Amino acid sequence: MRIAELSRRSGVSIPTIKFYIREGLLPGGERTGPNQARYSQGHLDRLALIRALRDLAGLSVSAIARICAEIDRPGAAVLEQMAVVADALSGGDAAPAESPALEAALEDVRSYLEELGWKVRPEAPALLRLASALVTLRALYYPEMPAGAFAPYAKAALEIVTVELGERGALMLHEPALGLEGVVKGTILWEPVLLGLRRLAHEHVLGRR
Amino acid sequence: MRIAELSRRSGVSIPTIKFYIREGLLPGGERTGPNQARYSQGHLDRLALIRALRDLAGLSVSAIARICAEIDRPGAAVLEQMAVVADALSGGDAAPAESPALEAALEDVRSYLEELGWKVRPEAPALLRLASALVTLRALYYPEMPAGAFAPYAKAALEIVTVELGERGALMLHEPALGLEGVVKGTILWEPVLLGLRRLAHEHVLGRR
Repeated sequence: MRIAELSRRSGVSIPTIKFYIREGLLPGGERTGPNQARYSQGHLDRLALIRALRDLAGLSVSAIARICAEIDRPGAAVLEQMAVVADALSGGDAAPAESPALEAALEDVRSYLEELGWKVRPEAPALLRLASALVTLRALYYPEMPAGAFAPYAKAALEIVTVELGERGALMLHEPALGLEGVVKGTILWEPVLLGLRRLAHEHVLGRR
Repeated sequence: MRIAELSRRSGVSIPTIKFYIREGLLPGGERTGPNQARYSQGHLDRLALIRALRDLAGLSVSAIARICAEIDRPGAAVLEQMAVVADALSGGDAAPAESPALEAALEDVRSYLEELGWKVRPEAPALLRLASALVTLRALYYPEMPAGAFAPYAKAALEIVTVELGERGALMLHEPALGLEGVVKGTILWEPVLLGLRRLAHEHVLGRR
């Protein structure tokens, strides 16, 4: 398709498409003449991913450019690409300053997940996020809080994810046809649902007393 | 206690304490002389609540002042005070513009929770948050998405909250001794735990395939 059709079908303006190409977020089209290029479904998918990262995840153009560069690395498998996108979502907050308390919490979180039998990459940014939460909890509740305090949340998270990634839940997350932007949507869009329902469940359960 | 001791025990500086009194967040002390006043445990509790709302929930001084005014309303019961604090946490985002799509989603969310037997106030801000999430999901997935798509999240939320508010989980949330700032901590501090574990569970379950 020509750039005009790419713009129409993606809902992204032509100047913005050209900007994304200049910044390296979007590969250029296949040259078909001195002033013409042809674009493909791959360009549409990439624009959808860029919009999801920008509008839903709130990432900057430079952050999105880094993600795209990693995804476009020759030989990157789909699961690796998905991990790149997922990591970008978990690493959105600035990394907390390293500290002995954070190191200890990170070690505790890793051991705890190992006990549970969860297989996750030791460098997954979400681990750092959890360790950072544990540091705060220890500071505000009691210093010896074990990572095992996460148990009810881990159980619930695993149940949710089993449904999300199951046959009937496939629509919501990681449906291959939804592409990499499906990872962004599936991860981010359901978070306010989960948090909102937890808050309402507090009201419901307290009110029953 | 004198203001110096209140400052030392709360970790809030004397000028800040005086600022909070001027702005109506903190009641003045009991006058014991022309330049002296006595402060009580109630002042310590209030300062802890103010810090939690400011540092953990990121609320502005004027938002905190409104919350304090509601809490201090004569005759406010503890459960009402807790609802005021919880609502402030759910209403942090600007209310989305009213629209027919939002109205319809709100109606669907209310009916769905009614089916589940959840008793929540029809004006709870978390309902609006859920309806707003449903509007986004419908726009990005498919327009007829029913509120019943929330089912796995509602089930998980109820399980979590049953533990949180149970005997052994009382430490984490709504422990009366933790006071109203316990509501803020208990609500907010565990949210990154839940979201972080969901993200790691995605990695774990996808990796097993």
